[in-house]
Amino acid sequence: MSAQRLGLIEPIMIGPRAKIEAIAHDRGIGLAKASFVETSEAPLEAAAAAVELCRNGKADLIMKGSLHTDALLGAVLARDGGLRTGRRTSHAFVFDLPSYPKPLLTADCVVNISPGLTDKRDITQNTIDLAHMLGIERAYVGILSAVETINPAIPGTIDATALSKMAQRGQITGAIVDGPLAIDIAISIKAARIKGVESPIAERPDILVVPNLEAGNILYKQLVYLAKAECAGIVLGTTVPIILTSRADSEKCRVASCALAVLQSRHRSPMKALA
Amino acid sequence: MSAQRLGLIEPIMIGPRAKIEAIAHDRGIGLAKASFVETSEAPLEAAAAAVELCRNGKADLIMKGSLHTDALLGAVLARDGGLRTGRRTSHAFVFDLPSYPKPLLTADCVVNISPGLTDKRDITQNTIDLAHMLGIERAYVGILSAVETINPAIPGTIDATALSKMAQRGQITGAIVDGPLAIDIAISIKAARIKGVESPIAERPDILVVPNLEAGNILYKQLVYLAKAECAGIVLGTTVPIILTSRADSEKCRVASCALAVLQSRHRSPMKALA
Repeated sequence: MSAQRLGLIEPIMIGPRAKIEAIAHDRGIGLAKASFVETSEAPLEAAAAAVELCRNGKADLIMKGSLHTDALLGAVLARDGGLRTGRRTSHAFVFDLPSYPKPLLTADCVVNISPGLTDKRDITQNTIDLAHMLGIERAYVGILSAVETINPAIPGTIDATALSKMAQRGQITGAIVDGPLAIDIAISIKAARIKGVESPIAERPDILVVPNLEAGNILYKQLVYLAKAECAGIVLGTTVPIILTSRADSEKCRVASCALAVLQSRHRSPMKALA
Repeated sequence: MSAQRLGLIEPIMIGPRAKIEAIAHDRGIGLAKASFVETSEAPLEAAAAAVELCRNGKADLIMKGSLHTDALLGAVLARDGGLRTGRRTSHAFVFDLPSYPKPLLTADCVVNISPGLTDKRDITQNTIDLAHMLGIERAYVGILSAVETINPAIPGTIDATALSKMAQRGQITGAIVDGPLAIDIAISIKAARIKGVESPIAERPDILVVPNLEAGNILYKQLVYLAKAECAGIVLGTTVPIILTSRADSEKCRVASCALAVLQSRHRSPMKALA
């Protein structure tokens, strides 16, 4: 409803109406400007209803409410009747960091557990496309691992090498991609110089791609909890943007995620019209 | 030499003496209080000399200089003539964080790439022993992963479960161990409450154990670069403490690591005398 007051969205509440209204009443939140699609309390039913609204063009984006991510993504990623595209589905955050002079995007810290190289290509391209939409014309992309040398014992270093070469060969477009990079070299030119690492990414990444979910989860939560970042998050590679907020997210984060999804949705519609 | 001036150590410089003296002269560092063990420029020779000094009781700890970690650890971990103990060798950091009210230890962010469960048991116990030495009598240990539920697709969640149970069964001692925990729940009771996770670790970990090197590298570098942490680092599970500083580390970090190694060394010697 905060995003509605800002004119960002027209909310459709999907779920058991009486229960939603009772919760809103308890919190002093007015729902006069919201419409409703009534379902049972079963999360899968609400998720399926949201996907159906998007498929019929009656909704432009989905925001996760009080149901598990798995339930929502299950409906979104269904082979029949879901919201898939040809691309691997991935998540991206956009961070506003007090200690960094521009927006910093990270992927994939939420959806893909142990992505393979082909998945990482899509994760990287999805995030580059999002950066373009945000006005970052030529994105600097750092592929993170634990070290900047190639070590077959550390699988992330091999994937990073392949992704860098893919960008050179045009299999990833619209960005300068380099890796493997440890995060200190990605964000600090001083660290890169001391270690003698030449990278076009050092101290100016627009995007950091993480090796796997466990690393990514630590990365983004540290940015929020220790580096006092504000963030917006969005699911990419689906036919409509999906906002996967976490229960512990702030209102600011949720509203920012709405803004990001709306931007993504508006950017996509003219493309569809041309197709 | 800064650590020497503080009375922490008596330095023995190991390597090509003329080159070391030339570098010190260029930087205006006096070496009058240092002794020398001359070797060639070959890193393996210097590493072997350091290990030999420790085996003969002529040195109490090793600090890495300008050679690769692999070269030093190769000599330290040699099956014959190294400094191994029955325990898996692991690394621990001690962080001083502006945003956290007590020291925070992390392991293993440096040495073990993809440790298995038995390795993780040793990593955890090594770090608990270090915490005891620092006066933390009953350490709260959080085993990190990307989520707090058990998911066979995320291997870190399974290891975390086993480590928690090992602490209950006395296979890990001297600590309260719980996992899997995502880092937000480990460091924020508010996040734990919102997500309905009951954990004795929430908001008060003394130790965070990471799932693998790629996650750990991101964790500790973010603490240093984004959360402005000061840290000391040390290798555990060897017969003498080993300081593995990184080239980009600050002087403060190097001196703090010396202090930690000296403390560890003094703590260990009386035990030896009793044995």
